[in-house]
Amino acid sequence: MPARCGEAFIQGLKNPRNIWMNGQRISDVVGHPALSGAAHSLAEVYDLQLKHSDICLGIDPETNDNINLAHIVPRSKEALIRRHKCLEKIAQFSVGLMGRTPDYLNLTFAGFSGNKSNWAAHGNEEGGENLIAYQKQLANADWALTHAIVSPTSEKSSGNVPHEADNMAVHKVENTENGILIRGSKALATLAPFADELSVYPRTPMPIGAEKYMLAFVIPVSTPGLKFLCRDSMSVKRNDFDHPFSGRFDEQDAFVIFDDVEVPRERIFIDGNREVYNNVMTKTHMPNIMQQTMIRAQVKLMFAWALGRRMAEIINDNSEATQKMLGEIWCYAEFTRSAITNSEAEASAHGDNFWTPSAPPLHALRCMLPYWFPKVSEYLKLIGSHYMFSAPRAASINDPEMKHLIDLYLGGTANVTAEQRAQIFRLGWDFIGTEMAGRNEQYERFYLGSGSRNLQNVLGVARTDASDDLLDQFL
Amino acid sequence: MPARCGEAFIQGLKNPRNIWMNGQRISDVVGHPALSGAAHSLAEVYDLQLKHSDICLGIDPETNDNINLAHIVPRSKEALIRRHKCLEKIAQFSVGLMGRTPDYLNLTFAGFSGNKSNWAAHGNEEGGENLIAYQKQLANADWALTHAIVSPTSEKSSGNVPHEADNMAVHKVENTENGILIRGSKALATLAPFADELSVYPRTPMPIGAEKYMLAFVIPVSTPGLKFLCRDSMSVKRNDFDHPFSGRFDEQDAFVIFDDVEVPRERIFIDGNREVYNNVMTKTHMPNIMQQTMIRAQVKLMFAWALGRRMAEIINDNSEATQKMLGEIWCYAEFTRSAITNSEAEASAHGDNFWTPSAPPLHALRCMLPYWFPKVSEYLKLIGSHYMFSAPRAASINDPEMKHLIDLYLGGTANVTAEQRAQIFRLGWDFIGTEMAGRNEQYERFYLGSGSRNLQNVLGVARTDASDDLLDQFL
Amino acid sequence: MPARCGEAFIQGLKNPRNIWMNGQRISDVVGHPALSGAAHSLAEVYDLQLKHSDICLGIDPETNDNINLAHIVPRSKEALIRRHKCLEKIAQFSVGLMGRTPDYLNLTFAGFSGNKSNWAAHGNEEGGENLIAYQKQLANADWALTHAIVSPTSEKSSGNVPHEADNMAVHKVENTENGILIRGSKALATLAPFADELSVYPRTPMPIGAEKYMLAFVIPVSTPGLKFLCRDSMSVKRNDFDHPFSGRFDEQDAFVIFDDVEVPRERIFIDGNREVYNNVMTKTHMPNIMQQTMIRAQVKLMFAWALGRRMAEIINDNSEATQKMLGEIWCYAEFTRSAITNSEAEASAHGDNFWTPSAPPLHALRCMLPYWFPKVSEYLKLIGSHYMFSAPRAASINDPEMKHLIDLYLGGTANVTAEQRAQIFRLGWDFIGTEMAGRNEQYERFYLGSGSRNLQNVLGVARTDASDDLLDQFL
Amino acid sequence: MPARCGEAFIQGLKNPRNIWMNGQRISDVVGHPALSGAAHSLAEVYDLQLKHSDICLGIDPETNDNINLAHIVPRSKEALIRRHKCLEKIAQFSVGLMGRTPDYLNLTFAGFSGNKSNWAAHGNEEGGENLIAYQKQLANADWALTHAIVSPTSEKSSGNVPHEADNMAVHKVENTENGILIRGSKALATLAPFADELSVYPRTPMPIGAEKYMLAFVIPVSTPGLKFLCRDSMSVKRNDFDHPFSGRFDEQDAFVIFDDVEVPRERIFIDGNREVYNNVMTKTHMPNIMQQTMIRAQVKLMFAWALGRRMAEIINDNSEATQKMLGEIWCYAEFTRSAITNSEAEASAHGDNFWTPSAPPLHALRCMLPYWFPKVSEYLKLIGSHYMFSAPRAASINDPEMKHLIDLYLGGTANVTAEQRAQIFRLGWDFIGTEMAGRNEQYERFYLGSGSRNLQNVLGVARTDASDDLLDQFL
Repeated sequence: MPARCGEAFIQGLKNPRNIWMNGQRISDVVGHPALSGAAHSLAEVYDLQLKHSDICLGIDPETNDNINLAHIVPRSKEALIRRHKCLEKIAQFSVGLMGRTPDYLNLTFAGFSGNKSNWAAHGNEEGGENLIAYQKQLANADWALTHAIVSPTSEKSSGNVPHEADNMAVHKVENTENGILIRGSKALATLAPFADELSVYPRTPMPIGAEKYMLAFVIPVSTPGLKFLCRDSMSVKRNDFDHPFSGRFDEQDAFVIFDDVEVPRERIFIDGNREVYNNVMTKTHMPNIMQQTMIRAQVKLMFAWALGRRMAEIINDNSEATQKMLGEIWCYAEFTRSAITNSEAEASAHGDNFWTPSAPPLHALRCMLPYWFPKVSEYLKLIGSHYMFSAPRAASINDPEMKHLIDLYLGGTANVTAEQRAQIFRLGWDFIGTEMAGRNEQYERFYLGSGSRNLQNVLGVARTDASDDLLDQFL
Repeated sequence: MPARCGEAFIQGLKNPRNIWMNGQRISDVVGHPALSGAAHSLAEVYDLQLKHSDICLGIDPETNDNINLAHIVPRSKEALIRRHKCLEKIAQFSVGLMGRTPDYLNLTFAGFSGNKSNWAAHGNEEGGENLIAYQKQLANADWALTHAIVSPTSEKSSGNVPHEADNMAVHKVENTENGILIRGSKALATLAPFADELSVYPRTPMPIGAEKYMLAFVIPVSTPGLKFLCRDSMSVKRNDFDHPFSGRFDEQDAFVIFDDVEVPRERIFIDGNREVYNNVMTKTHMPNIMQQTMIRAQVKLMFAWALGRRMAEIINDNSEATQKMLGEIWCYAEFTRSAITNSEAEASAHGDNFWTPSAPPLHALRCMLPYWFPKVSEYLKLIGSHYMFSAPRAASINDPEMKHLIDLYLGGTANVTAEQRAQIFRLGWDFIGTEMAGRNEQYERFYLGSGSRNLQNVLGVARTDASDDLLDQFL
Repeated sequence: MPARCGEAFIQGLKNPRNIWMNGQRISDVVGHPALSGAAHSLAEVYDLQLKHSDICLGIDPETNDNINLAHIVPRSKEALIRRHKCLEKIAQFSVGLMGRTPDYLNLTFAGFSGNKSNWAAHGNEEGGENLIAYQKQLANADWALTHAIVSPTSEKSSGNVPHEADNMAVHKVENTENGILIRGSKALATLAPFADELSVYPRTPMPIGAEKYMLAFVIPVSTPGLKFLCRDSMSVKRNDFDHPFSGRFDEQDAFVIFDDVEVPRERIFIDGNREVYNNVMTKTHMPNIMQQTMIRAQVKLMFAWALGRRMAEIINDNSEATQKMLGEIWCYAEFTRSAITNSEAEASAHGDNFWTPSAPPLHALRCMLPYWFPKVSEYLKLIGSHYMFSAPRAASINDPEMKHLIDLYLGGTANVTAEQRAQIFRLGWDFIGTEMAGRNEQYERFYLGSGSRNLQNVLGVARTDASDDLLDQFL
Repeated sequence: MPARCGEAFIQGLKNPRNIWMNGQRISDVVGHPALSGAAHSLAEVYDLQLKHSDICLGIDPETNDNINLAHIVPRSKEALIRRHKCLEKIAQFSVGLMGRTPDYLNLTFAGFSGNKSNWAAHGNEEGGENLIAYQKQLANADWALTHAIVSPTSEKSSGNVPHEADNMAVHKVENTENGILIRGSKALATLAPFADELSVYPRTPMPIGAEKYMLAFVIPVSTPGLKFLCRDSMSVKRNDFDHPFSGRFDEQDAFVIFDDVEVPRERIFIDGNREVYNNVMTKTHMPNIMQQTMIRAQVKLMFAWALGRRMAEIINDNSEATQKMLGEIWCYAEFTRSAITNSEAEASAHGDNFWTPSAPPLHALRCMLPYWFPKVSEYLKLIGSHYMFSAPRAASINDPEMKHLIDLYLGGTANVTAEQRAQIFRLGWDFIGTEMAGRNEQYERFYLGSGSRNLQNVLGVARTDASDDLLDQFL
């Protein structure tokens, strides 16, 4: 069956790859203490689709195989609503802490496939065919695919467009017998050590003359010359009481270096075609992928609300301030829910009968979530206060000398044991206080562009006519 | 035809009433300079339903008459969606600046009627029948009805529940031959000088012993002993260029004094029945009326967005800060839209086949709009800056000596004349800077309860189970 | 005696002047209902210096006359501390609502005089002498002087620097027999209708080629061709109970048009001298004038705190939220106090033995007060809520029919009468809700540059070395 | 010499103590990987006073010995200004990241000593004498003293006052031959594993009947029965490039259990004396200790400003948004500086000729810093964005294979090497992103009471008369 199980995913990780962390090359991803936790969690995500195949899988229209719904181009509103449940199931697994589970790029490429007439145009027919073929292969192999699209930056003022003679950004060096040779780097590939394949595709339109930077392709992470420089690991030894999240969900980010890498011809989707490069990321791209990102966000917000309520209950905190903060977290979860549901209800078909949710509700979330998440985190920190620091680890609670003292002095209200209290407040700190939590908060601030930039770009996605009419009636 | 025209409304205002403003009793509401503007605007609202009868009117199921949709108990999701368009049309007329146009109480009473089994219960069958009969009369007469539900307060700490021996709150003094005699006051009746009738109904549950305060009834504003003490008028002489809003839309608020008022028996809906008083404002009340309030809010936010964009365009303000503020206003409008649409899509029937939108999306708006509106106002003030003060009045623009100087020195970018620039920035100041604008901002902070109180009450309206499940998977 | 009394100021207002408001030219400033209130308040400010001559006046070192301390160049730290008390006394009169009382420009010109070697330089010796002579004349005549320094804007994107061939900004047309002929406009002159004289001086450095815009001068407001276009009046009929502020303190703002105005030679301080124009606003300018602006701000914040506390007391509002808001207002007042006191303690002499407070504490206030004042206003609106609307006017309270009802239903806690309650809440609304209050809030956002712009300019006024050292110890 | 060196401090840590972490008892504090870093940093703090003895030390008026200025009761304004420099020097060492360096409690006890007539009163003469004797001993031994004053909480709603029959809070069990036996716990003792002694003293006034909880004393941390349960260590292996802060400055916090501990008579300062217990924390306590806390805060804010500027420079981020955030950080540093300087300038003597800075400026900081620090942290996160994650460790930079790739692809602007860029952004992440940084942010939110609570308590520390006068002039 195409939909892989966790064990198959783990096997795939044994392919060679050039992963660096803390000045050392890692030979065994699955066995490395900093990576093992997330590797096994991702395996669980693969198992999840089989365990909940009724929710997560659907029939591949061409092969009749059962594949993850994220691989299938949505052809109706109902398909989107079915896909919603699949995405939600995956998001629930990590309460939204893993943003780049494979479904994210699966539906990105399903979207590209849904948009195929834009790729296979302007003389790029071969590239377009390659893309379509690749997307089928991806769906069938059920690989873990990641992406690297942000260029490295020495100067923020230059945006994401390479300078003339920019040697830092990924660029084509020359044609080779079987494809092209590329060189340069990308600033960020989340999930990199756990991926089977790496994709590069357009982000910002580029000017004439920058053709060598106009590239779209996918290569295996085992491709020679491809090197990943991981950020500090924020993973700790797995212990589900002490660290329910940071022992399991550090999906890692890496700086990507293309130290002379050959991309085979059949894996090239764009090679210097400006017309295609600058137009292929159509207005359907964002609403397609944001179905995933916003469902994940909603799950995370709902979890944050439950967590905040539970912490407050345990210490019987009924203060006005705490009630207000909890109420506000709920509001954000509810706006997110309404925006998603509404965007699905307003779904429509685009060229090639590719369906996406409507864009405006999701863009509004894209603008505000980078502000809401840090606020939610702040609120949980205010509610959890010093209780998060006096929550002992399992080993202390179970130590014969300490146990009765902990029971005596660190219990919660009424019927809450010291162990239960410790568990909730440790959960709280692991959600907003540990280093992985800090990286997650940072992820929310930036992963779809900063809130600030998105707000400035609203005019590009919003319709102005109805509001203009309201004004013009007074002129 | 039951649906009244503006002229009929104006005629109705000639009934005697005891209205005080600035230490003087006003004998002629329509002719008084502080009230004339809004009186005629409300007349236009009545005319509007006839002009747009396809949108605003529907068939009364009992009389087959054409009445405003706000009078009709919604019996299906489609009925709510039709009502949406009617409410939107009315809100657009004043870009949401008039919050208490008659549709507000019309749908409140339609909602009471939809809930009749709650009113006609526990021995209050007569009161319930009176209510049903009154609602039909209201629909048929198409009166302007207002309400006064907040008790006067000498001590904020006591909440809205009268003290023992509280003589300030409205209370029953004794039975009379034809009804009951009441005495006391209410803190606020918006629209009072323009209303035909005044309603009083429950707000906060009351304890045993407070039976004399448990009242629900409607009386004509012309009832002897009923006195209205208006706040300062914020209406100015109508000139649609100089003051497009404050010349027309000051709906007024009044303190209401019941200086020994007799309520006739057939207009009494609750008279000391605690069981009914404390349970009649069921969970359907808020979503029913919030369909009106949130559609109004959305219209106002959309207008604010257009206004902010237009001001920025005229002075060619492309700054990052301004673009961000405009983007944020749009986001709020879009969240509001999504929440309303989603609440209508999730509409459901309650006892007696009374349909309302789903509550959570609207409650989330109720919590946050009191914070969003002042923020929007702040943003418009920052964008409009001193340009709002250098925008001359029509008379200056038209003065022979000044006109050419104004053209010379106060024009906008490219093809914007000084007159157009002045009009937009005057519109801006009248929307957020004049005294009426200040009252409107204050209205948004408090008219559905303060944001702070609503946030604290979230647990009463939100479901916790799904979010608890997310948490419990880690315990 | 040089220090004028109020009556002398009022006499001065009878000089002819070209003041436009609402499309009409105003012939009698003192008698006009929109201007009379502020005219008499400014007269009171003049009387104040005589009544408190021990605090407000000092000996002119040249004439031995008693003049306002704001006219005297500070020659020591003690002189600054004495001036503080004078400025505070004036600010207290209007609790900071009048920002441009004459002391503001008096100390501006005392500062220019203190900096005379910068004016009388680079071939501008005559201009410098004119300036010194003028400042003595000003001190001696004790005129009300205003200023207009912001250029009119059709495009915000161009900043305050005139375009080439910009006909909107004030510019020199030609030399005349007795001086120069100028033409153009200025965006804002606060106090204009009440001023005896109008000053123009540099704001933003200008490029080579823009010489005709490089002007500094003072002329009487009665100069032919000088026209003032007032913004809407926000003054109401004076009644100290109903409108304690907006009946008295609307200092007015006007757009200024130089419709071919001749400036006599002896009143010209800069005429196209770029070297002087671009360097004369030295780093001493802001701390000198900010002593006045920040003392005024502190008075206003202290008043806001007292007002908020009093409103809360009257309705017995002890909520956590209100206590927090009140605490925050106090903090802002206290930071302002500390910053001013500290800047005076750190005062130092500059060239020509001109003393000013130290700049950094005052610049920090300049950055943040535009954000703090609107926040304070928001807090007072939340505390005052609907109580500000149910506060009756004096005429209602004194009406025989209404008085006993108002006493009965609109009293405050314990020993607070309805009249006292009404007075405080009316005071509150007049401070933050009436149109004049709205203009005041807007003034605070912008009068020393917007908060946003000031924050961006911090690097121009702050020293970085000590903080860099802290960082470098880790490198 | 009394002033200890680092080596002496390290020797002291070898005394036995009952420290638990992660379910294990730690036998060797200095050698334990989680504690070694901070132990040696604290040793450096001790060495610092000797290295900068001109700044840090002064003559003990009784012994003529050279002791740290924090041990000496300030007897003049000049003494406070001298002490300022000592405190600043210590704060600079850890850029304010260590809040509880020994100077904190040294000046707390110097303050108690300065207030001795309050302790030795109402029949507590012996306790008072014990306190004075202890403070001399402390100064002479130069111990590291910590404190535990917050009671453990099962219910937040009960505040810090023990319930009747509360067995969780520290309480006296009985008199013993040489002192008293106590039992119970305290919620938090920062620095506990590194302290020589532990103090307990009053925090919140207590009611009659709670005498057994009214205790003040100091005991050695080696006292039998005294157990410390450390929170998770946030210390990492020291590497000054990779982790300049979290390898060195984790001062630890511990929950303290008094598992039947005997306090010797001469170390008891209060034993059930309610009059003394409830009055000994006079209004001089907070301004005395806040001189230390606010100097530390100022140093930290200045560092944050330098860090933010440096990050922005390296990537040439000149955006409006970044400039504004940097400007705001500077403002907070400057307000803090002004408030401290002003409070010292306004210093005054209290009974017993004990001098403290004036309280209001420091209380204003106490209210607002818990809000400012998280904001500053947010700003640095926005400026550092993903650059903090792509900053490689020293080992990667020095690896032969990676070095040239890192140089090629991860450099900064113009003359900034990849190594320098990495160092600054790693410094940034260690300051605001690592787990220790998260604990530090949490510390700032709560260590002097939450911002929310402090704001509510403003009326207890602020004078109202001058502001009331401003209001009353209008009544």
